[in-house]
Amino acid sequence: MKTRTIIIAAASMLLAAASCQQKEQKAPIGLITEPTPASTNVNGKEYPKINPDLSVVFQVNAPEAETVILDLGKQYPMAKNADGIWEVTSEPQVPGFHYYSLIVDGVKVADPSSQLFYGTGMMCSAIEIPEVGVDFYLPQDVPHGEIRMQRYWSDLTQSWRTCYVYVPAEYDQNPSKRYPVLYIYHGGGEDETGWAIQGKADNIMDNLIAGKEAVPMLLVMDRGEALVPNARMADGPRSMFNFSSVDMLASQELIPMIDSKYRTIADRDHRAITGLSMGGFIAWSVGLNHPELFAYIGGFSGSGMAQNPDAYPASLNDQYKLLFISTGSDESPQMHSTVTNFRDVLEKNGVKHIFYESMGTGHEWLNWRRCLKEFAPMLFKD
Amino acid sequence: MKTRTIIIAAASMLLAAASCQQKEQKAPIGLITEPTPASTNVNGKEYPKINPDLSVVFQVNAPEAETVILDLGKQYPMAKNADGIWEVTSEPQVPGFHYYSLIVDGVKVADPSSQLFYGTGMMCSAIEIPEVGVDFYLPQDVPHGEIRMQRYWSDLTQSWRTCYVYVPAEYDQNPSKRYPVLYIYHGGGEDETGWAIQGKADNIMDNLIAGKEAVPMLLVMDRGEALVPNARMADGPRSMFNFSSVDMLASQELIPMIDSKYRTIADRDHRAITGLSMGGFIAWSVGLNHPELFAYIGGFSGSGMAQNPDAYPASLNDQYKLLFISTGSDESPQMHSTVTNFRDVLEKNGVKHIFYESMGTGHEWLNWRRCLKEFAPMLFKD
Repeated sequence: MKTRTIIIAAASMLLAAASCQQKEQKAPIGLITEPTPASTNVNGKEYPKINPDLSVVFQVNAPEAETVILDLGKQYPMAKNADGIWEVTSEPQVPGFHYYSLIVDGVKVADPSSQLFYGTGMMCSAIEIPEVGVDFYLPQDVPHGEIRMQRYWSDLTQSWRTCYVYVPAEYDQNPSKRYPVLYIYHGGGEDETGWAIQGKADNIMDNLIAGKEAVPMLLVMDRGEALVPNARMADGPRSMFNFSSVDMLASQELIPMIDSKYRTIADRDHRAITGLSMGGFIAWSVGLNHPELFAYIGGFSGSGMAQNPDAYPASLNDQYKLLFISTGSDESPQMHSTVTNFRDVLEKNGVKHIFYESMGTGHEWLNWRRCLKEFAPMLFKD
Repeated sequence: MKTRTIIIAAASMLLAAASCQQKEQKAPIGLITEPTPASTNVNGKEYPKINPDLSVVFQVNAPEAETVILDLGKQYPMAKNADGIWEVTSEPQVPGFHYYSLIVDGVKVADPSSQLFYGTGMMCSAIEIPEVGVDFYLPQDVPHGEIRMQRYWSDLTQSWRTCYVYVPAEYDQNPSKRYPVLYIYHGGGEDETGWAIQGKADNIMDNLIAGKEAVPMLLVMDRGEALVPNARMADGPRSMFNFSSVDMLASQELIPMIDSKYRTIADRDHRAITGLSMGGFIAWSVGLNHPELFAYIGGFSGSGMAQNPDAYPASLNDQYKLLFISTGSDESPQMHSTVTNFRDVLEKNGVKHIFYESMGTGHEWLNWRRCLKEFAPMLFKD
């Protein structure tokens, strides 16, 4: 199809020149053949620049600064050149989506050259390191669904909230058809924009649905946080694993709103819930608390509580059609064991489940994009 | 309706307590009665904090920095306290949406406590100063439309683009009804997210449509920039006022895509185009170049070229149903005169038009929100 469009474009000399040239020079998807500005840079910015070995050159203009450090998980002191430009080249990076910051004279700030993403509790710089030959999360030449920003009033929190709703490409073409729904939560320090922006959930679902791997479904991306007066979910570690507020909001307000505004199949057999990291714990907590609402539960780099094995009896398999957990092979031992210890609990209790490990990825979005690609095709098929 | 929901909520002691309390304490919309965190702060951040006189207290934790300056249009040197927290209180601010930065040892950075917005060519901090009694751009208890992120492939630029499309609340309830479309562009250094995020266009349209002031319509928010190979629009001042690439993209790709994916009334009488600042110049340039596509043209703080008076003959009134221009009373003399000089040209040439001046606002988003509120009700009524 692209070939055809290019032939058509060829009618215009100007375009023909440009696009054919592009065509010839086109490298395999994700292959870096020369130093290339990151796709996560602000429109038109040259740095950060990814080298063929996946090392990254960072630059910032800060003539008056005393010290500038790149914080990419590992810290790299930057060096100032004669023009006052600070620069450093990182070690080769693993493919994936990596948050980073600049530390200017001790102040952690965002890189003005980077697009910013709500992560780590602030608007944060990040760099996308492509993976050669991998395009499941990239826009492809397939029908495209939409992500819709849905505002709704919450009596529980006495506030307006916005959730993001993915609808498949066919949604508006089938005004009488109803669809199953996957509720999917972000991680700690992120918000409802995570799956839409960092997660590229719309591309992943467009591609899975076009390839007939997943059935057409809606995704609902709401904030995994709800400041319900006198409830305590949102005030930090002390209540990190108390999801009662999110549970109340999802079961009493979010799901009824979605079922009223969208053409959903409003029963448990056509509802799934998952999330990443903190969102995975939310999904398992809310999902197990509401068998009347959900038949499928997933958790990516976050799931149930290994410390509480009795809460996960084999009888869960009678209630739920799917129990899915996953982690990245390169996550920190502590993160990794959170999930593998829980897997051991499920196995010890004889709870049938799916365990997926994303090889070579850490606690980051490429990992979770792969998890969604694994999880979504298992939903709503019977 | 809120009262009713609160009575219902009262069934739950917990909620009743919270919501009634809130009810009693509720001040008039936009009135700051005590130092209050800005609505533009990142979730839960205490600073920037707006005082009742609309002065603003800014803080940043930077113990090792030598100098920290708040750049709020005017620069305010900040002072460091014993804990290494830098603080300054600005002069009283005019209501509106103001971009700002922190300058840490000479480096212009975003405030980690602020939500960030794509403006000034980077992700930029901003503070919303509320206006007492003004809620036309706030979410209200009315039916809510949606903003949909629409990806589309552009042959002209050989790239995937995303435009934002507002659809009115009734859109999905009337699967056979077709709607007029307003194409609306952002300003220089901003992008397609501007009207959706800073502009609060969905709230403004929801409220206008619910109040029967504007007819239900779609808004299409695309990027006012297109890197068409060998065309020059996007490389800076030299081609600042050459919108041929955007013109090609809008007329050849964007409009056909929208008319194919949405239930539009696909004729000139049901299409309008406007924008702010650079986007206003885009709207007048593209609108006048395509009388076959548009019957309504607007420009907010940016319009036509006073330097080229012959391009605006009285006969325009035979072609177009509405020619709208506007500016803010407190914009810089240069910005202000750009529009008023063009108004003089229209008057001299006998071109009937609407001129609107937003009193007390500068070259910022409260100004442009008001312009949309004035402009949208004039569209598609005959």
